[in-house]
Amino acid sequence: MTKINPSKSIDHLGEFGLIDHLTQDFIPQNASTVLGVGDDCAVIEKDAKHFTLVSKDVMIENIHFDLMYVPLKQLGYKAVSCAVSDVYAMNGTAEQILLAIGVSSRFPLEAVEEFYLGVRHACVHYGVDLVGGDTSSTSQGLMISVTVIGKVEKDKICYRSGGKPTDILMVTGDLGRPYLGLQILEREKNVFLSNPSIQPELERFDTLVKKQLMPTARKDMIELLESLQVVPTSMIDVSDGLASEVLHLCNTGKVGCCIYENKLPFHEDTLLMASDFNLIPATCAMNGGEEYELLFSVAQRDYPKIQGNPHFTPIGYYVSASEGCYFEDNSGVKHQINAQGWRHF
Amino acid sequence: MTKINPSKSIDHLGEFGLIDHLTQDFIPQNASTVLGVGDDCAVIEKDAKHFTLVSKDVMIENIHFDLMYVPLKQLGYKAVSCAVSDVYAMNGTAEQILLAIGVSSRFPLEAVEEFYLGVRHACVHYGVDLVGGDTSSTSQGLMISVTVIGKVEKDKICYRSGGKPTDILMVTGDLGRPYLGLQILEREKNVFLSNPSIQPELERFDTLVKKQLMPTARKDMIELLESLQVVPTSMIDVSDGLASEVLHLCNTGKVGCCIYENKLPFHEDTLLMASDFNLIPATCAMNGGEEYELLFSVAQRDYPKIQGNPHFTPIGYYVSASEGCYFEDNSGVKHQINAQGWRHF
Repeated sequence: MTKINPSKSIDHLGEFGLIDHLTQDFIPQNASTVLGVGDDCAVIEKDAKHFTLVSKDVMIENIHFDLMYVPLKQLGYKAVSCAVSDVYAMNGTAEQILLAIGVSSRFPLEAVEEFYLGVRHACVHYGVDLVGGDTSSTSQGLMISVTVIGKVEKDKICYRSGGKPTDILMVTGDLGRPYLGLQILEREKNVFLSNPSIQPELERFDTLVKKQLMPTARKDMIELLESLQVVPTSMIDVSDGLASEVLHLCNTGKVGCCIYENKLPFHEDTLLMASDFNLIPATCAMNGGEEYELLFSVAQRDYPKIQGNPHFTPIGYYVSASEGCYFEDNSGVKHQINAQGWRHF
Repeated sequence: MTKINPSKSIDHLGEFGLIDHLTQDFIPQNASTVLGVGDDCAVIEKDAKHFTLVSKDVMIENIHFDLMYVPLKQLGYKAVSCAVSDVYAMNGTAEQILLAIGVSSRFPLEAVEEFYLGVRHACVHYGVDLVGGDTSSTSQGLMISVTVIGKVEKDKICYRSGGKPTDILMVTGDLGRPYLGLQILEREKNVFLSNPSIQPELERFDTLVKKQLMPTARKDMIELLESLQVVPTSMIDVSDGLASEVLHLCNTGKVGCCIYENKLPFHEDTLLMASDFNLIPATCAMNGGEEYELLFSVAQRDYPKIQGNPHFTPIGYYVSASEGCYFEDNSGVKHQINAQGWRHF
């Protein structure tokens, strides 16, 4: 293993740097391994016409979720959504999941049942089967890991890396709601902690909070693309904020991009609530996360098939790598996109 | 979900009861799901001649391992061994793994590198590719989850359930070493805690301690069975003690068994050290665990192909379910085997 400067901490490397660093010396040995680390899923030979897709996520209490405001049933649903979203991001069909949980003795059986009820609802929604996993006790807290297995026709697989200059960048649904949902939940938690007699007021933020607590992976959009006979040239799911995801696409595809603030799709509640929090909606989209919408590119020749469809919004296009990755704000000023997102000020 | 008595705690159900309870209402929906929960691996349709095998394990600090005496490199190796062992237990070939770790900030980068070095050594040894996973921080401790993907020819898959009365029960290698290795490590830890100036004395227990810290999954035995043209009628890996595993085979196969104390294979160090700890070697085998040896059955007609091979030991045979599951001790007394193992006194 190539040693890096020992003074470098894990925090310094960041999540993606750490994975790259730790896995750089692993050389695939099996002919069936088509693609290892570096995309939404690993790609494995299945049969003459199909690849198997596999992905694995982990969610840890007080890192990824706060049980003060996350109901366990919704957490179970979300854990499955996060996992299957990785298969959809490769243009595949999710078929099976394996679920490992570690749970401390502070959780009664009913709490674990609630979690599994959410998992089951998600399995029914996405048409996936729970086929295995593991349970363990922990000394504290709740830990969840979901592995998803899917398949994709070989000639329809979408990698992060397939984009070409002039391809149109598109996004499903709208952006920014989960980020604002999280701000609301954190605000109400702090109100509650300072005065437990005040009940949290969440109903009027329902569209925002629900998208944070129980996001839906876009199986429907993969099916819609199929029916429109559109195979994206590159695709990723928006789990870490638009800025981070578009940079993944550009870096692996060796292209640049231009994204327009005035093209980004927002729900009306996002516009209202962003102003309450003194936030710019584009910041919520670029720096937020946990959207589980799909960000993808289509070749110019396919664009007429998809243009005007209310489920898809064109937000920019790929340019050559030498032109860089840019975000053009509403006043026409171009900002370079960086991994931390795009900051307006 | 069928509610059980709410006063029942998670501890009361036990690990296997909990998994059964939580997964009983999950109905497979995909034709590709051949077998879900209930064997060493889930079984998924791959192509005309092969099944895909998938399994997922989780290991949590201070539940599954104690970093006071488990070196991280050996832990990385062991995590992979535990995972691939599940594929071998179905008579399959392991090809890929996905690794998720959660690690607190108390671990320096070098510690995580050590762990991955052990993972890499194991990947090379077993011929598997690390193709993905996830890393996360935790608020405390180390959490590891490994998913393994393998394949098996459809007509060579071994389920837990395939045994028939008169089939011979056999085990690879020898039993009891990891259990005694753990006793030694715990004893030396307590000596060290009470007097840190005393250095642990581990060299003369090397065969026992090493089998606990760095067990090897029996890929070689699967290859040997293949070359001997023996397909076991049922198989499981010995991860939870022989008593627990033989009951899994008998319960799923709807058979009973008789196992003989005087047939159990022991390393000479197991015999020596068991007497030091005032333990009976058979107790170490029946109630121990983490052996990662294979327990399997062969039909009478196949027995001549394998008889006398030093890698395999016949320890008993299947009988009809109505005859029950029995352990016959060295004095000829029969004891019923129960899930907690077999206790001599």
